[in-house]
Amino acid sequence: MKIAIVNGPNLNLLGTREPNIYGNTTFTSYFETLQQTFKEVELMYFQSNHEGALIDKLHEIGFSFDGIVLNAGAYTHTSIAIADAVRAITTPVIEVHISNVYQRETFRHHSYLATAAIGVISGFGLNSYHLAIEAFIKKPV
Amino acid sequence: MKIAIVNGPNLNLLGTREPNIYGNTTFTSYFETLQQTFKEVELMYFQSNHEGALIDKLHEIGFSFDGIVLNAGAYTHTSIAIADAVRAITTPVIEVHISNVYQRETFRHHSYLATAAIGVISGFGLNSYHLAIEAFIKKPV
Amino acid sequence: MKIAIVNGPNLNLLGTREPNIYGNTTFTSYFETLQQTFKEVELMYFQSNHEGALIDKLHEIGFSFDGIVLNAGAYTHTSIAIADAVRAITTPVIEVHISNVYQRETFRHHSYLATAAIGVISGFGLNSYHLAIEAFIKKPV
Amino acid sequence: MKIAIVNGPNLNLLGTREPNIYGNTTFTSYFETLQQTFKEVELMYFQSNHEGALIDKLHEIGFSFDGIVLNAGAYTHTSIAIADAVRAITTPVIEVHISNVYQRETFRHHSYLATAAIGVISGFGLNSYHLAIEAFIKKPV
Amino acid sequence: MKIAIVNGPNLNLLGTREPNIYGNTTFTSYFETLQQTFKEVELMYFQSNHEGALIDKLHEIGFSFDGIVLNAGAYTHTSIAIADAVRAITTPVIEVHISNVYQRETFRHHSYLATAAIGVISGFGLNSYHLAIEAFIKKPV
Amino acid sequence: MKIAIVNGPNLNLLGTREPNIYGNTTFTSYFETLQQTFKEVELMYFQSNHEGALIDKLHEIGFSFDGIVLNAGAYTHTSIAIADAVRAITTPVIEVHISNVYQRETFRHHSYLATAAIGVISGFGLNSYHLAIEAFIKKPV
Amino acid sequence: MKIAIVNGPNLNLLGTREPNIYGNTTFTSYFETLQQTFKEVELMYFQSNHEGALIDKLHEIGFSFDGIVLNAGAYTHTSIAIADAVRAITTPVIEVHISNVYQRETFRHHSYLATAAIGVISGFGLNSYHLAIEAFIKKPV
Amino acid sequence: MKIAIVNGPNLNLLGTREPNIYGNTTFTSYFETLQQTFKEVELMYFQSNHEGALIDKLHEIGFSFDGIVLNAGAYTHTSIAIADAVRAITTPVIEVHISNVYQRETFRHHSYLATAAIGVISGFGLNSYHLAIEAFIKKPV
Amino acid sequence: MKIAIVNGPNLNLLGTREPNIYGNTTFTSYFETLQQTFKEVELMYFQSNHEGALIDKLHEIGFSFDGIVLNAGAYTHTSIAIADAVRAITTPVIEVHISNVYQRETFRHHSYLATAAIGVISGFGLNSYHLAIEAFIKKPV
Amino acid sequence: MKIAIVNGPNLNLLGTREPNIYGNTTFTSYFETLQQTFKEVELMYFQSNHEGALIDKLHEIGFSFDGIVLNAGAYTHTSIAIADAVRAITTPVIEVHISNVYQRETFRHHSYLATAAIGVISGFGLNSYHLAIEAFIKKPV
Amino acid sequence: MKIAIVNGPNLNLLGTREPNIYGNTTFTSYFETLQQTFKEVELMYFQSNHEGALIDKLHEIGFSFDGIVLNAGAYTHTSIAIADAVRAITTPVIEVHISNVYQRETFRHHSYLATAAIGVISGFGLNSYHLAIEAFIKKPV
Amino acid sequence: MKIAIVNGPNLNLLGTREPNIYGNTTFTSYFETLQQTFKEVELMYFQSNHEGALIDKLHEIGFSFDGIVLNAGAYTHTSIAIADAVRAITTPVIEVHISNVYQRETFRHHSYLATAAIGVISGFGLNSYHLAIEAFIKKPV
Repeated sequence: MKIAIVNGPNLNLLGTREPNIYGNTTFTSYFETLQQTFKEVELMYFQSNHEGALIDKLHEIGFSFDGIVLNAGAYTHTSIAIADAVRAITTPVIEVHISNVYQRETFRHHSYLATAAIGVISGFGLNSYHLAIEAFIKKPV
Repeated sequence: MKIAIVNGPNLNLLGTREPNIYGNTTFTSYFETLQQTFKEVELMYFQSNHEGALIDKLHEIGFSFDGIVLNAGAYTHTSIAIADAVRAITTPVIEVHISNVYQRETFRHHSYLATAAIGVISGFGLNSYHLAIEAFIKKPV
Repeated sequence: MKIAIVNGPNLNLLGTREPNIYGNTTFTSYFETLQQTFKEVELMYFQSNHEGALIDKLHEIGFSFDGIVLNAGAYTHTSIAIADAVRAITTPVIEVHISNVYQRETFRHHSYLATAAIGVISGFGLNSYHLAIEAFIKKPV
Repeated sequence: MKIAIVNGPNLNLLGTREPNIYGNTTFTSYFETLQQTFKEVELMYFQSNHEGALIDKLHEIGFSFDGIVLNAGAYTHTSIAIADAVRAITTPVIEVHISNVYQRETFRHHSYLATAAIGVISGFGLNSYHLAIEAFIKKPV
Repeated sequence: MKIAIVNGPNLNLLGTREPNIYGNTTFTSYFETLQQTFKEVELMYFQSNHEGALIDKLHEIGFSFDGIVLNAGAYTHTSIAIADAVRAITTPVIEVHISNVYQRETFRHHSYLATAAIGVISGFGLNSYHLAIEAFIKKPV
Repeated sequence: MKIAIVNGPNLNLLGTREPNIYGNTTFTSYFETLQQTFKEVELMYFQSNHEGALIDKLHEIGFSFDGIVLNAGAYTHTSIAIADAVRAITTPVIEVHISNVYQRETFRHHSYLATAAIGVISGFGLNSYHLAIEAFIKKPV
Repeated sequence: MKIAIVNGPNLNLLGTREPNIYGNTTFTSYFETLQQTFKEVELMYFQSNHEGALIDKLHEIGFSFDGIVLNAGAYTHTSIAIADAVRAITTPVIEVHISNVYQRETFRHHSYLATAAIGVISGFGLNSYHLAIEAFIKKPV
Repeated sequence: MKIAIVNGPNLNLLGTREPNIYGNTTFTSYFETLQQTFKEVELMYFQSNHEGALIDKLHEIGFSFDGIVLNAGAYTHTSIAIADAVRAITTPVIEVHISNVYQRETFRHHSYLATAAIGVISGFGLNSYHLAIEAFIKKPV
Repeated sequence: MKIAIVNGPNLNLLGTREPNIYGNTTFTSYFETLQQTFKEVELMYFQSNHEGALIDKLHEIGFSFDGIVLNAGAYTHTSIAIADAVRAITTPVIEVHISNVYQRETFRHHSYLATAAIGVISGFGLNSYHLAIEAFIKKPV
Repeated sequence: MKIAIVNGPNLNLLGTREPNIYGNTTFTSYFETLQQTFKEVELMYFQSNHEGALIDKLHEIGFSFDGIVLNAGAYTHTSIAIADAVRAITTPVIEVHISNVYQRETFRHHSYLATAAIGVISGFGLNSYHLAIEAFIKKPV
Repeated sequence: MKIAIVNGPNLNLLGTREPNIYGNTTFTSYFETLQQTFKEVELMYFQSNHEGALIDKLHEIGFSFDGIVLNAGAYTHTSIAIADAVRAITTPVIEVHISNVYQRETFRHHSYLATAAIGVISGFGLNSYHLAIEAFIKKPV
Repeated sequence: MKIAIVNGPNLNLLGTREPNIYGNTTFTSYFETLQQTFKEVELMYFQSNHEGALIDKLHEIGFSFDGIVLNAGAYTHTSIAIADAVRAITTPVIEVHISNVYQRETFRHHSYLATAAIGVISGFGLNSYHLAIEAFIKKPV
């Protein structure tokens, strides 16, 4: 089983700087934890601040992977193009957010992505990624 | 660890009638599966079609349980009173939905509840409940 | 043929008090008139001010009756949960109103229910119920 | 008793062409059925695709007929002028629709006409006309 | 003179739990203070989290009491049915709020109830109830 | 204890002219009644039709008085400047209205002032002023 | 000087029927009064309930008359086509209304026509036409 | 017959400066023309840039004059207080504008004043004032 | 192949008057150019300022022609009835505009027609018609 | 004559994968067809999923080409930056869409680009590109 | 060079009272600093809480000064009249704000003034005034 | 002191082409002027049309520079991602615009960026950059 984690804008800053703000865990170290937790899954990680690069990557992996965990960051709320890419590929996509976006500014409550994704997981810190991988692994009930 | 599953209006119909529409799994039989999966967790289940009964139950269990998995159904979109109950209790609440509400009518995209819950899991069928319990069990990252 | 009349909030006040306002006809006495008019139809009557009780009743009768005449009162405009109950049952539902709701406040012009009901009859006084029963009896053209 | 049925734009196509879409019943043949059903009523029928012609007709008959059954079609949603004509005449008008307009596009949910008509009957196929005539015949309760 | 105090959803939590949040005064103990202050008034108290139960109570007391002090909590903003109940009864109703609702979320600024009540008192803590009773007692100027 | 009553535009017309419309009570004669009722309170009265004059007065008294009862009239709905003045001073302000503004035009339902005032009293005729003074006198519960 | 008066839908009913509602003055008799008052002006009158007929007439007279007094009735609020006709012709047009449209329903406050007309006169009864003719006669200041 | 002309903000600049922009006619010289034209009318003129001063003046003259021609300038669109003053006085008020406000920015299309005035005359240059005086003089038809 | 060109309100003025505004080309002379260009196509032309006449024509030709090029002018933005006529007929319709409507007033950006037409061509002057005919002739890719 | 075709996000997927969804025609093979059809035109093709790369390309070719056929895909609806690039260059741009965007989700009905382009061609499949090239070749009428 | 600084409502409170809130710098002492910094500029200062007084002052100085630095406070968001005054005078005006208004309530994000001013400087504390004077002094690039 | 100037989409065209439109000053030559004016400041310049590249650059310099002058061009109005980048870095950012954006289209009046920047300077031509650098240099008052 091959699952990709795709992170959008500003998520590269997680844990690399300003630890009091972003915590001490970089996403790459958390990614290692995920790899150890889900040994049976082939995990891949990609991050970009470029809307176009995220679309390119979705096209590249979106016909061969079994699942994509996508935290599109702010592009969640503004990018019809990424949502269209999700609709165009055959790999199912789960939208995740680290924070509970519904407790933030109103413009973060709307998601173009959510109508194209199979589901949404929001508000569980880095665990949102863990739960999304579980969602791909579990058989539907 | 004590976790309650609270279901709102119309969710009592799941699997009891019209199997071609609602599937063959009643929520009570799925609840047994959850109990067997999460043996270390004391699980409780409650369903009501009454907004007031849901608030009463949240008050009753909301100061002693460790987590509440709440699928408020249509009240998610219309009930400030239930969201206030979630804010008033000390037990953390996760909002879940069986379907991906963002692929349904526009009036289902807004959630009063989401601003009071710690997080949202939407679109994974009955697995949404399983993932929510996992979210309570896992330690935050 | 079994047809149920289900009335929502405040409709219990019809004709029981303040005759100058609500008229002298109580709904129960009008219901007797209906029973005499439609002798071939098995008529049932239920009223509640509780959104949840209306949903419970729709679930109870919504798989065996041939038609439900539903005046959901103010819940017409605010209850997605009742509209979902109408969608979930197999008995067809007709939305009725005693007054012409389009001549009242703007917030009464929108109906969540109307998208789930098979049709709407509004503005004919108590005759709205009579016409709805006729609509169930007549064969479609 | 004199009752007129007035049909607006595109309703001339009913049953005359494309039977798989519009059915086999032309409105004129249905009108004959109505005449046979309501033998005690003097029925009249008029159809036009012209907003102005509908207003002219309402003026012409609106001070002598006992009731007008008006299916203004798409003009229901856009014509303040027809609604004003209904307000200007003394004959009461019932707004009817063949389909349940609330299950169609949002722009069909608003009716300028409904605030001027005495009531609305929507969603019962051609039977909507039958019910409207009944509504005129029955004495108010 | 008979005056009822009717409290809506979540107001049962006042002072019974989490004293650091809700204060130490339960509403029942505050109600005793009110009874001692207004010895000439026959005071009654009712609380429910159920929209329907609030409507039932308004119907029950709304033709014999001299005044109702109604804190409908979150139902203030969502319940047309309660507002209709207030319009249907003959006892005058005053809408009260403990907090100044205009300093909270935008969705709490709108009140269906206020158009049916004779007046609104908002923001004076538990004193809002005291002032409302005074308002009923004082003769109009 | 020093409490000021500040009235905004058009409130000078109360009771001075057109008694059949505005009643016979001028505000100055009502003010004398208030002075006799609250003998322990040093009451002051000011009225102006000028937005700027109301702000000047709030600045002048807003750091020395114990309370201000402010009926800003139509400026309630349009003046951010007066609301800012209320926020800038240290004396607490109560917003009052003689009529129930929620039963009037929609543009009177919004209040810039209410987010800056400690509370709102609306709909009790001239008694609204009396209740506001009581609100300042009573100790918080 | 040639000035045309063009009246839109429902204005043919003025004074011909229901005198208690529409008054006793028919527009044709008022038109004679206007002709006697403005003897130096060649006056012409046209009325139609048809949007298209009004456009046809504007095209016909809109390059040779010196002024058009246009009461487009309800088409004022819905017809971009008539406003475009006014923009397309060279004769200046004044929009008039018998009643003060701003004191009627909100949908009558918006005028597509007003952006194409040189000015608006609203609320002076039949005198609105008289004033519009004066406006054409007077030299600009 | 006593008629007052009341001008609001920025209208004092007419013709006094920048003749290429505002023309050479000051309002005071135009006022003299009006006085000579309407010799039988006692005309009065007042201008202020202060919302409060305009209200004070309306109160002062609004119970003794026979008509007020009010060009409230930008306050037309923002001042509920001036509109309330117009409603409070007994002298009828006509709203006038020099330019056609419907051809300017959208925020100038809405008028709080128009719902309180008896009529509106907009777009005829200084002649708008002349027409308004005529409107007061002519007897209603 | 039979293709009809149907023009709506005000398009009859093209090139017949005011050449400096509308150009020297009348639509009839341009229509001759089209006939010479597309000799293999049987072209028909119809224009009306009447919404109803346009609907009548669409009904008349809409079951036998191979394509209709429809410039509905201002009715594009206001007529649900014409859009319904397009939906009701079997001949495919292309919406054309001479000017680029998106560079004009906002109310011209919305098209009821576009949801019923197969495509839209806007902004190419009279060439918009030429391109639409080409679109009907070319085989789909 | 030099004409560029510029395609935006997700349009690289056309015909390369999932033939049952996207058809068998890749855009590059269709581009060859266009080159053979328009032999007298020097055609160029560019595609990118990157908003910035599309802007860069518009800058690069936008002062030397004779026309640009731009299908900006989802960026049509969200990118003011691309629309500004179109405004900044001197080469005229035609907006094209393969599908009729007005028959898809509401958020695809608005185009920032359309106010900057000379015209729009939408809904003709790949032929939309062909028609746009024709539009550049034909001399204006 | 003559530059005026004009401050609107509540800005007189700066530094005169409540130093912990408004700081210790009164605007008059800051004005002296500005005078010493810009010795070559003739600086003038005016403050009023009256909308009308601000307009009067703009008229008085708006044809002779070289620049006006205007902090209209809350009137920025509500006063079309002040914006009209800025448009009417010949002296260019710069809108300044001490705080970054875009980080405050939504109703402070809109500025009527900004469409009339030559530019906006917002968020630099008292330095906003200094920068505005520099903007007047520097020659345009 | 290290200050970066970051320019967004289309700003590379300034002065390099079409001098009659964009002026003769390229930004690079203006940048040299700035370097000579602010000799004590280490100035850096970056421009990109790519939203992602702007975010990358903000991350790169946003923890070491003393200030960033950001003209995000059209991304100001559409990019939550850039605003989030500004919030994520520690270097303060000033939003600048060459033109007064409030005098352009409505969609340019809203800025996602402004809520994250410390202040806004808009409308002073290239001097906006100069003023922003001054704002960083001056000590706060």
